[in-house]
Amino acid sequence: MGAPMNLAPTGNPEAAKPAMPVRVPIKHCRNCGIAVVYRLPDDGDTRERGVCPACDTIHYENPANVVGTIPMLGERVLLCKRNIEPRWGKWTLPAGFMELGESLSQGAARETDEEAGAQIEMGDLFSVISVVRVGQVHMFYTARLLSDQFKPGHETIEARLFREDEIPWDEIAFRTVRETLRLYFDDRRARTLGRVHAFDLN
Amino acid sequence: MGAPMNLAPTGNPEAAKPAMPVRVPIKHCRNCGIAVVYRLPDDGDTRERGVCPACDTIHYENPANVVGTIPMLGERVLLCKRNIEPRWGKWTLPAGFMELGESLSQGAARETDEEAGAQIEMGDLFSVISVVRVGQVHMFYTARLLSDQFKPGHETIEARLFREDEIPWDEIAFRTVRETLRLYFDDRRARTLGRVHAFDLN
Repeated sequence: MGAPMNLAPTGNPEAAKPAMPVRVPIKHCRNCGIAVVYRLPDDGDTRERGVCPACDTIHYENPANVVGTIPMLGERVLLCKRNIEPRWGKWTLPAGFMELGESLSQGAARETDEEAGAQIEMGDLFSVISVVRVGQVHMFYTARLLSDQFKPGHETIEARLFREDEIPWDEIAFRTVRETLRLYFDDRRARTLGRVHAFDLN
Repeated sequence: MGAPMNLAPTGNPEAAKPAMPVRVPIKHCRNCGIAVVYRLPDDGDTRERGVCPACDTIHYENPANVVGTIPMLGERVLLCKRNIEPRWGKWTLPAGFMELGESLSQGAARETDEEAGAQIEMGDLFSVISVVRVGQVHMFYTARLLSDQFKPGHETIEARLFREDEIPWDEIAFRTVRETLRLYFDDRRARTLGRVHAFDLN
């Protein structure tokens, strides 16, 4: 997973408040270690960046992608009980931060392996959700489980299969996971799987 | 646009070579300025990160999103002639790095305004392309132009409308733009617009 998923937890009243993502400001230059100054760069950029007064390095900060899967075995979906904060003990689809050197689907497959130890055949992109408040984009792929044997990693207490009516909706860790699960089972019921759902959450 | 689009230019033989994205390594801690050490963090992470030996800050580096639009006026698409490197003088769809505090579609709309000064009605997500070699994901939305009057920004020499048979295919700046344009006009001809195209380029 890499960094913690610093997400608006389900039901948090703060989640409705749009704002710039809270990031720890850059204090020192990554290149030379001198204290940076937040200002408009000299290249016509319209946003303040951390600029180094010594070596002129400009420090860009951009949203990060979280990638995961909806691993299905027949009518059942694989969920993981989180062994890490935030939302320890809550259930999630296997997902984590996309890394350099991999594609979106490769990252989703890697996270499914790391968190659930599940063998899958990757399917199609299903949901693309901008979570503006935390500076993230969450993307989930459909996936077909090749076995009902799992080997949860250290970030997972338990990996278990759920039918739709067994899903612990009030114990889902993140809104993007809950929305993705709802849309997936809705599409499955309506036989409209194949669409990509792209939307925003503040 | 923010940072330069450090992309594999069209036709570059290097583009076929899969490799870790070339990023300038982090030398100093963003929090305290001390020289970082690349090593496995102590939290079970399986990738080497820049770790600060003084304050323990872990420096994560992740792929960035580039967002843009396919702005259409009837049968014609709006392209921008680049006034910046890389690929100065080549043609592109309006696109640039997604910023903190905005969604994918908001970023795509902003870039269309900044680079072309074009008034649009945003449409649907159309293409999602992982460009592994440079650590980027490029996403394009369909868009309907509300006017044929443009006000190109400082990053654009010229903004002009092209019918499909007028597109300067050999003068397109980036592979993701060329692929997106081809797929868009193919789908338009086949009356299959509405699908999202998600794939990888090395």
